[in-house]
Amino acid sequence: MRLEQSHRTERFGAVRIHELQRVIELDSGAQRGVDLGGRVGNSQLVAPGAIRAIEEELVVVIPCMNETRRVIEGVLSGIPHDCLIILVSNSARQPVDRYEIEVQSLEQFCRLADRPAVAVHQRDPGLASAIKAAGLPELIDDEGLVRTGKGEAMLIGMAMAALTGRKYVGYVDADNYVPGAVNEYCKAYAAGLHLAESPYSMVRISWHSKPKLRDGRLFFSRRGRSSEITNMFLNRLVAEHSGFGTEVIATGNAGEHAFSLDLGLRMRLAGGFAVEPFEYVELFEQFGGLLPEAAALPEDVKAVPVLQIETRNPHFHDNKGEDHVKGMRMQALNVVYHSPVSLPAVREAILEFMVAEGALAPGQEPPRERIYPPVGSMSFDTFLDTLKAESTAFHQIECSLDVSSVT
Amino acid sequence: MRLEQSHRTERFGAVRIHELQRVIELDSGAQRGVDLGGRVGNSQLVAPGAIRAIEEELVVVIPCMNETRRVIEGVLSGIPHDCLIILVSNSARQPVDRYEIEVQSLEQFCRLADRPAVAVHQRDPGLASAIKAAGLPELIDDEGLVRTGKGEAMLIGMAMAALTGRKYVGYVDADNYVPGAVNEYCKAYAAGLHLAESPYSMVRISWHSKPKLRDGRLFFSRRGRSSEITNMFLNRLVAEHSGFGTEVIATGNAGEHAFSLDLGLRMRLAGGFAVEPFEYVELFEQFGGLLPEAAALPEDVKAVPVLQIETRNPHFHDNKGEDHVKGMRMQALNVVYHSPVSLPAVREAILEFMVAEGALAPGQEPPRERIYPPVGSMSFDTFLDTLKAESTAFHQIECSLDVSSVT
Repeated sequence: MRLEQSHRTERFGAVRIHELQRVIELDSGAQRGVDLGGRVGNSQLVAPGAIRAIEEELVVVIPCMNETRRVIEGVLSGIPHDCLIILVSNSARQPVDRYEIEVQSLEQFCRLADRPAVAVHQRDPGLASAIKAAGLPELIDDEGLVRTGKGEAMLIGMAMAALTGRKYVGYVDADNYVPGAVNEYCKAYAAGLHLAESPYSMVRISWHSKPKLRDGRLFFSRRGRSSEITNMFLNRLVAEHSGFGTEVIATGNAGEHAFSLDLGLRMRLAGGFAVEPFEYVELFEQFGGLLPEAAALPEDVKAVPVLQIETRNPHFHDNKGEDHVKGMRMQALNVVYHSPVSLPAVREAILEFMVAEGALAPGQEPPRERIYPPVGSMSFDTFLDTLKAESTAFHQIECSLDVSSVT
Repeated sequence: MRLEQSHRTERFGAVRIHELQRVIELDSGAQRGVDLGGRVGNSQLVAPGAIRAIEEELVVVIPCMNETRRVIEGVLSGIPHDCLIILVSNSARQPVDRYEIEVQSLEQFCRLADRPAVAVHQRDPGLASAIKAAGLPELIDDEGLVRTGKGEAMLIGMAMAALTGRKYVGYVDADNYVPGAVNEYCKAYAAGLHLAESPYSMVRISWHSKPKLRDGRLFFSRRGRSSEITNMFLNRLVAEHSGFGTEVIATGNAGEHAFSLDLGLRMRLAGGFAVEPFEYVELFEQFGGLLPEAAALPEDVKAVPVLQIETRNPHFHDNKGEDHVKGMRMQALNVVYHSPVSLPAVREAILEFMVAEGALAPGQEPPRERIYPPVGSMSFDTFLDTLKAESTAFHQIECSLDVSSVT
């Protein structure tokens, strides 16, 4: 893969946010004689060997809810062979057991492609027991099951990823009509994680465009409105500290993102659709150097780079409707508002915006989103033992999770 | 890349048509220790080294007409680095010189991606002189320029591909919104040409689906109506000889296809949209063993395999309207009708169909399409000399075509 050079970075304590880098070539060739790649003229080459090395350490988690079998098969086909797939489903099990169909598709794919995978259902009672026993009861709702929500699915996926012995985890949404786009996300994760050169690193994807139906034709819009708002306030948060306006953050809502497990396991995750914007907030809180209670960086970690990559493929997915988008936007603002690193001017601006949007009555405070403890605080051996003993919806296809591999 | 096994083939003399093979994985991993790949269980693995080896010998010709710059940039980004790009444009040069914009985009891409390319305009007077001088005056119209039409653009592209010293040529339409799909086509060409294991070989792509706007949402249709009709009559042509009905041909209209230049240079090409279906007809005429005037196969050619590959990516492109499709369908039937290898029953069926469709009055004959002599019959040194001397629209970007490389 070949990327544009990233020329500018914005710092927030140890967090180093790189400006958006576009993909120049999906496949930059054999590059014989080139070991890992590097800066070539105005572009950044990541040679196949460097991509492969990361893919072999990368877990790809697919949060999934009621997608059609064809769409899931397409997504699976796009994930590079050397990545390990973990499906975390919250699909309906009544009146038809859609999860069972998903697992069958996954098993068939793995058989044909000669590769392993793991699957679990978010609402499986055995999973809930395992999560509770492992020390994360915050994740359990009144029904005694793991809460529904995207952040919760991602957390489950990360807990399982930690048991694979691999170094990185990335997320790919299941509702993607373009297998080639899924493939590009994974290649971009690998390229970015390679370039980040740090034990703590994160890569976030910005789509080239998102085609929408408008007046009977396709219109390729650049950014969703939800993303624009989230990015605006995250940038404002940064700018209020530095004293300089910035537009560096372009991936506040990025569903497609990856990070090193060393980093991921020590991050708190938010529930629902707050999960993605909260990752930025959490980085600022933990590594921004502003909060006295934040732990110090390990000796071998000099910085926490966040690379942002703009893919070439458009993002064709199912239209979930306006409510979904509005909900996402407000959840993002709630976490920015309540962060101790948000300065008063940002909080004021958020209040004004939410009142103007009719999302908040004047004088009210935005609600707080659920914030879970870091996955790394779990007791992994209890988690895996209970899962194996009690879950009927936990499937290990040609692989075996192993607690000794948790770093 | 990993493909389904192809279990059945249909023979027509030396032509061996393989049934459609689906792509299982876009990227089948590093496969360390695996040299070229092979049959694994129920799938066919083509290892990265085997793909790379073909890509380094593959020219990708992009016929282009008035596409937007953004779409072209996306297509370019999807073509694997090691393939050599040849752009054959028939875009408008008035009131804005769109070809100039295309060449600028191509030059910028090549600079960023550090790779070569060639471009020419189909209606450039210098190109017409070169084609005429090289011994293909059939290609020239009343204005003294190369005829407009897709087959004509493909022919020009093949003539240039022959001067690169590479072994294979593939075609990718410029009107594709999904760079990842373009990438998959090229990988599928490489995988298929590798698997074909013959100096004469052809790979044709069948799209997974073609999304259409219907009632405000996307509907993923499997086959266009034009393709269904073309395939039906081509299959009928084959079946009338064997005495057994068949549905083996699924790629009669395939715009995305590739072949060895050894094969391509000795094939006649048809003009306009007849070009793709006529390739099948031409293979049957030349290698079907039915026509006494057909030349014998060279000693090292045991068969002429045609591999058909169903990609995973949907084909998102601009909707060119119903007229375009109807025109394509009739041109395909015209070439099947007039082939000396079409038996009377096929010709009758075509007449009936065309009359029923209102495309032909009862008692009329279908028109003949233009059929050009093989590109291999050209005088390549005259072609290149004249092109260099007279064409102002011929651009060699970081490469130099060379007549000594023609095989």
